[in-house]
Amino acid sequence: MAKQGTFLVFDKPNSPLQSVSGEIPALESGELLVKIDYTTLCGSDLHTYCGLRQEACPTILGHEIVGTVVDIHVGSILPDATGQTLKIGDRITWTVFASDPNTASYHADTPQKNDNLYKYGHRQITDRDTFHGGLATHIILRPYTYIHILPKELPAPIAATINCAIATSAGAIRLAGTIQGKRVLISGMGLLGLVCTAMCKEMGAAAIIVTDIDSKRLTLAEEFGATATIHSRTSPDALPSSQDIDCFIDMSGAPDAMEAGVAQLGINGVAVFVGAVFKQRKLQIDAEQIIRRILTIKGLHNYNYEDFSVAVDFIISNWQKYPFLRLVEKEFALDQVNEAFEYAIAQKPVRVGIHMDIK
Amino acid sequence: MAKQGTFLVFDKPNSPLQSVSGEIPALESGELLVKIDYTTLCGSDLHTYCGLRQEACPTILGHEIVGTVVDIHVGSILPDATGQTLKIGDRITWTVFASDPNTASYHADTPQKNDNLYKYGHRQITDRDTFHGGLATHIILRPYTYIHILPKELPAPIAATINCAIATSAGAIRLAGTIQGKRVLISGMGLLGLVCTAMCKEMGAAAIIVTDIDSKRLTLAEEFGATATIHSRTSPDALPSSQDIDCFIDMSGAPDAMEAGVAQLGINGVAVFVGAVFKQRKLQIDAEQIIRRILTIKGLHNYNYEDFSVAVDFIISNWQKYPFLRLVEKEFALDQVNEAFEYAIAQKPVRVGIHMDIK
Repeated sequence: MAKQGTFLVFDKPNSPLQSVSGEIPALESGELLVKIDYTTLCGSDLHTYCGLRQEACPTILGHEIVGTVVDIHVGSILPDATGQTLKIGDRITWTVFASDPNTASYHADTPQKNDNLYKYGHRQITDRDTFHGGLATHIILRPYTYIHILPKELPAPIAATINCAIATSAGAIRLAGTIQGKRVLISGMGLLGLVCTAMCKEMGAAAIIVTDIDSKRLTLAEEFGATATIHSRTSPDALPSSQDIDCFIDMSGAPDAMEAGVAQLGINGVAVFVGAVFKQRKLQIDAEQIIRRILTIKGLHNYNYEDFSVAVDFIISNWQKYPFLRLVEKEFALDQVNEAFEYAIAQKPVRVGIHMDIK
Repeated sequence: MAKQGTFLVFDKPNSPLQSVSGEIPALESGELLVKIDYTTLCGSDLHTYCGLRQEACPTILGHEIVGTVVDIHVGSILPDATGQTLKIGDRITWTVFASDPNTASYHADTPQKNDNLYKYGHRQITDRDTFHGGLATHIILRPYTYIHILPKELPAPIAATINCAIATSAGAIRLAGTIQGKRVLISGMGLLGLVCTAMCKEMGAAAIIVTDIDSKRLTLAEEFGATATIHSRTSPDALPSSQDIDCFIDMSGAPDAMEAGVAQLGINGVAVFVGAVFKQRKLQIDAEQIIRRILTIKGLHNYNYEDFSVAVDFIISNWQKYPFLRLVEKEFALDQVNEAFEYAIAQKPVRVGIHMDIK
């Protein structure tokens, strides 16, 4: 008998999401059905909700998700990233994208960039293509989704963030290169910045200087391992002027922060840009300084499989060591999702969480 | 008996260099004396001569040099890069810098950046520190200079360019990453751009698209392996708009060219900036594109030991395959050096050469 499910439809910016219930389509080869346990609203969900970024509509928002396998296509044997065969009852996290390696544009280093990508939480709903976002009771995982089975004791609000914020942070750290003994500057203490801070702490950075425009987040950053905090608005000149930063990671997306960070890099310094995934003014970059100081600037969008696995390992090892649980500042049920968006936009918590225990 | 030598003193921009003759100082430990065979005028020499860049004066310009060992400090046994012991009569090329690895700021990957650097052709003359530039009959090589013995049949005008133009091009190619099968865009068909073009050809690039503002140089670039040429002024829109460039190397130093090149990079594309070693307007860079296309921008100033050795090997293998000899468009004797500067500035040849056969 077909299972019943519910999803919330986003149709246009600044309008309430609409609940739709109905039959979940039958699984096709290589697919599995997940009952969603928990979804966190990512910054990009909020940007879409406010109209700052565009999605093909109608769509189901939400891609930071954790859930439990409730059905597997009959005849498909699906392994997780470590080779374990997936079975009903497994609690799992998965990449936000399913990337077919047989596509001509597929790169092994960047599977997240592929002309033939299936991206959860970023797809138009059609009759044949639905249950693909996190604001729903269920999600169907498509072939080529990279999956990790999670330990049951990992709290859902933390587990939900692995496949976006944590994995992207792991990618940023990979691109930054060796962290041990290095002086790191991180701008933007949202979830990604805080995670990067903790990762740098675990990897033995010599200094972790962080910046934000919110004092509360700077205080939080100290609990995640920051060795120095700078308020970008009240103390914009507090950045070290000695150009002794080895790695700069921008999670803020603010052009001023990116320019200031690059200007602080010493010889051989590396900047990683992650936050600026929205329209903004162009950066003003001094090419002569890039050359004379032999600097590198790298961009990162999403993450690859290695980053995702590193993120899973990192969070399993460190979720109790840093106050990750406090980052989901308020929880809502799925049928309160419009309130959740309004709260998130007005209060700017690090995350709000959506649980599926609808009363 | 002390040897006599002559050097030409540069004291201020747009003024004739003055010839000074006298005793060459006695060699100290680790030093060797080279009789200069040939020096080519690099773009940076011309910039200094015109006042576009500053050197501590008085100085001896010229750093693209080839010469023959005529004396070695008694008691010093000096090996070249391949381990051969240097001896009188060896024809040699050497790094433009001597970099003491015992300095705190020394990086093995970038020995050219070091607070304690001795840079030939870029030093103030003092009583105790002279014969350190290429516009002279002799040069004293200091400890920690990295040296290669050259085959005698390699023509001097080509050999002279190894330790600046060729080695820096090798560094740019290293930073660009894998070239085989890639689509490469190179802007600026001066000596560095032409060398990069030939290197990409030898490494099996799928396409080598080159740009310049001079039609003559574009024609020359075809002889160095360019598969397509674009005149940046008359056909600025001829750049492919398909964002299918894998590697972009800028040797032009022109902000417009750098911005256009970065805009052409496809997913995972790499840009290497080399040419912009002078004051200019800031680049306008779209951070969102850096991120969404996972681009990398790298700067390079000078080169490391590996690049230098690659340059030596490249030129020994390929000097007859490409028209390198034609790149020195006119030769002057050391006592005609002021004419050489005037000619180089007015006519913009790829290089002028200075030979030491003074009549």
